[in-house]
Amino acid sequence: MEKKRTEISTLGEFGLINRIAKDFVPLNTETKLGIGDDAAVIDNGGLQTVITSDMLLEGIHFDLAFMPLQHLGYKAVAVNISDLAAMNAIPKQITVNIGLSNRFSVEAIDEFYKGVKAACDNYKIDLIGGDTTSSASGFVISVTAIGVVSEDRVVKRSGAKVKDVICVTGDLGAAYIGLQVLEREKQVYLANPDMQPQLDKYDYIVQRQLKPEARTEMVYELAEMKVVPTSMIDISDGLASELLHLSSNSGVGMKIYEDKLPIDKQTYDTAFELHIDATTAALNGGEDYELLFTVSMDDMEKLKKHPDIHFIGYVQELSKGNIMVTKGENEVQITAQGWNHFARK
Amino acid sequence: MEKKRTEISTLGEFGLINRIAKDFVPLNTETKLGIGDDAAVIDNGGLQTVITSDMLLEGIHFDLAFMPLQHLGYKAVAVNISDLAAMNAIPKQITVNIGLSNRFSVEAIDEFYKGVKAACDNYKIDLIGGDTTSSASGFVISVTAIGVVSEDRVVKRSGAKVKDVICVTGDLGAAYIGLQVLEREKQVYLANPDMQPQLDKYDYIVQRQLKPEARTEMVYELAEMKVVPTSMIDISDGLASELLHLSSNSGVGMKIYEDKLPIDKQTYDTAFELHIDATTAALNGGEDYELLFTVSMDDMEKLKKHPDIHFIGYVQELSKGNIMVTKGENEVQITAQGWNHFARK
Repeated sequence: MEKKRTEISTLGEFGLINRIAKDFVPLNTETKLGIGDDAAVIDNGGLQTVITSDMLLEGIHFDLAFMPLQHLGYKAVAVNISDLAAMNAIPKQITVNIGLSNRFSVEAIDEFYKGVKAACDNYKIDLIGGDTTSSASGFVISVTAIGVVSEDRVVKRSGAKVKDVICVTGDLGAAYIGLQVLEREKQVYLANPDMQPQLDKYDYIVQRQLKPEARTEMVYELAEMKVVPTSMIDISDGLASELLHLSSNSGVGMKIYEDKLPIDKQTYDTAFELHIDATTAALNGGEDYELLFTVSMDDMEKLKKHPDIHFIGYVQELSKGNIMVTKGENEVQITAQGWNHFARK
Repeated sequence: MEKKRTEISTLGEFGLINRIAKDFVPLNTETKLGIGDDAAVIDNGGLQTVITSDMLLEGIHFDLAFMPLQHLGYKAVAVNISDLAAMNAIPKQITVNIGLSNRFSVEAIDEFYKGVKAACDNYKIDLIGGDTTSSASGFVISVTAIGVVSEDRVVKRSGAKVKDVICVTGDLGAAYIGLQVLEREKQVYLANPDMQPQLDKYDYIVQRQLKPEARTEMVYELAEMKVVPTSMIDISDGLASELLHLSSNSGVGMKIYEDKLPIDKQTYDTAFELHIDATTAALNGGEDYELLFTVSMDDMEKLKKHPDIHFIGYVQELSKGNIMVTKGENEVQITAQGWNHFARK
């Protein structure tokens, strides 16, 4: 019997998610928000419970040749906490499932959980469960993070309004350039195992790749400044991809300015050294785990003294599209490259 | 530099969990119960939120040679819902993370999610999120299930008291004997691919292996009968292993009677045919996903007319140990074989 076979790569990750999501419309009244945002929202009375889950696979999401296990444990937690921050939620608990082949020892697991523990301590969260099992090949990690937020402070991807100001925290492109440096050093090492990696001058960008931080402190600070963003998302796939998510979820267009993009000097210098355009790294690099959000113009005043919040543009009518004004004052359309794990095969 | 290397198999799965758990003592007041039970319990105001998470890996937990993808999707959900039932919780939501190699097509994913959807419909739960990613090898599944229970109805592993009655739902050993039949048919098929599997006379036990059900209806029925078990666990690793968990968590001994173990006739007959002792299958087979619980003697009267609840023994002092009285009236010690995925490598 001949069966139809469609390659997953023809759908892409988001196409696949949409294909799945259309069959799963939430029915329980407790489910306030289902598939399609940074996290789901549940109301069991009291505070809203926010839940997100991510899977990391060896050889796809991380390379143990340059990712120490302790950093991996930290990062696996941080990227989920970042999704909670994108909902304006305070993280409270995580569960961690791991699968390991017999290539890994008890000491290796200890290293991994040292990183998980460091993240728990830093973000003040509890590890409350998880599964440890054997794997036929490689290291498999799945983390679920649980947080809380009051009903009136939940921020989705869908609330951006025309004239809102587009804000981004920290700086962009560093994690991607850091990864390029690590990949280069790995090649040098593979060619000559006696060579020690020279990473000192790349310390910031390498750190951004190996030990990303979730912007949970921003959730507290926004509350202190009495600001509720109109929409928010964390930058895991790259600024361009995330801007397009806010655009499609909110039904508005985004206009940003190239000269407003926050790029660290080390990112910029190293991008130049590697013949990579720094703006492209900022737009499409991903893994920065900064927050991208929109606020009403009325809230701009409260935010403008914050050293880590940068205004990069404003929200416009959907018909005007998603545009970046370049340093040369040309208008270019924003297109997402993001990470398509399926297409990379 | 010589580093110490300890094989994971020397600890076993529970040893590994204990090693991890000791470093992670919950600190948030919202965390009512952390690692070490069937699920964790969170209090964000209102009903208690119950959370559990499990990972299933191809080649370790399932064999796609005889496990249809639709059944796999159903089972991946059901086994987590079973953990919620073991806390006396009503399931409400799940997240599903999957990793797939390019061996799998879009149609294969559709089949898998058809099973997930069937489970969602059956248990009345919402799929609220998840991650789909590419995998370097094989099918990887991680499911997190979320449920609710009022504070006064949460049932842990730790509340069994001396003189309580030990109860088990449904029947035991069928899933294990079903797996043996499937393994035998696979060998026949591998030897001669033109042979069609003859499974008709094994329909019940094969179904128990391929499409297990969580005993969620028991949660509702216990509430109707106004019974709160003193301790409860679901039977995933085998009755013996679960009895020992209740024993160690509650600080009591367990005494069960071999002639009281509920074993279906098909399980019994097929075990005989395969030269497997049916009692051993019931004690150590696992994957039945029935509920094992203890109730106060005062509640026995309310339960005794329920066709799916069987009294198999009673709770005794810890000093008397964990004992099975055989059909020949000998007393044998209960030891756990369970599933040690690490030792099976």
